Amino acid sequence: MRFDPASLRYDDRGLIPAVAQDHRTGEVLMVAWMNAESVARTLETGRVTYWSRSRGAFWVKGETSGHTQRLVEMRVDCDRDCLLVRIEQTGPACHTNRRSCFYTAIRDGAEVEILSPEG
Amino acid sequence: MRFDPASLRYDDRGLIPAVAQDHRTGEVLMVAWMNAESVARTLETGRVTYWSRSRGAFWVKGETSGHTQRLVEMRVDCDRDCLLVRIEQTGPACHTNRRSCFYTAIRDGAEVEILSPEG
Repeated sequence: MRFDPASLRYDDRGLIPAVAQDHRTGEVLMVAWMNAESVARTLETGRVTYWSRSRGAFWVKGETSGHTQRLVEMRVDCDRDCLLVRIEQTGPACHTNRRSCFYTAIRDGAEVEILSPEG
Repeated sequence: MRFDPASLRYDDRGLIPAVAQDHRTGEVLMVAWMNAESVARTLETGRVTYWSRSRGAFWVKGETSGHTQRLVEMRVDCDRDCLLVRIEQTGPACHTNRRSCFYTAIRDGAEVEILSPEG
């Protein structure tokens, strides 16, 4: 079946969450949002392209930082309201220069930083 | 620093997305939503508890199906608006009886089913 980005279920802002996962290590690197055009551009170009809610603009990941994400495979969930993008990440995915945005763990009720910048 | 579920950034429905990841294999199994009370209950009980948007009720994953999720570790992202729950999954995570909800891949512009039920 041909894939049509319009067939996904977007929220009332026209957005769908996308989980970016390192295709080799399985590490979850970040979660951001796409609209239908971001989905189409990501598939066409192979460069993961989100929709920046704060800037209200397309966000080609790494366009300014160089920390790009090359799409290896896009996957859709059973409800068609979430995407998984399996990627090859160049440099850190997080704007704090950490490999992953999920660097804070909750352990025994406390926040613990488990990744350091450039770590 | 003590972790307070109220310190997370919820959307205008009071919800935050939670990515469930198999803590051993790294596989992303599903994405669902939590409110502050779901987050607190998940941490307190060790049983992953979402908020069902369709039913408008707490959803202790696996309570009826037996396909429970035991929390291994909760992580928070840099913007505090997304959670990663590293879990031990009993049985399939997906209501279609597949291990993961992300069983549809986009390959060469077409949808391909990459996991079968009970597969």
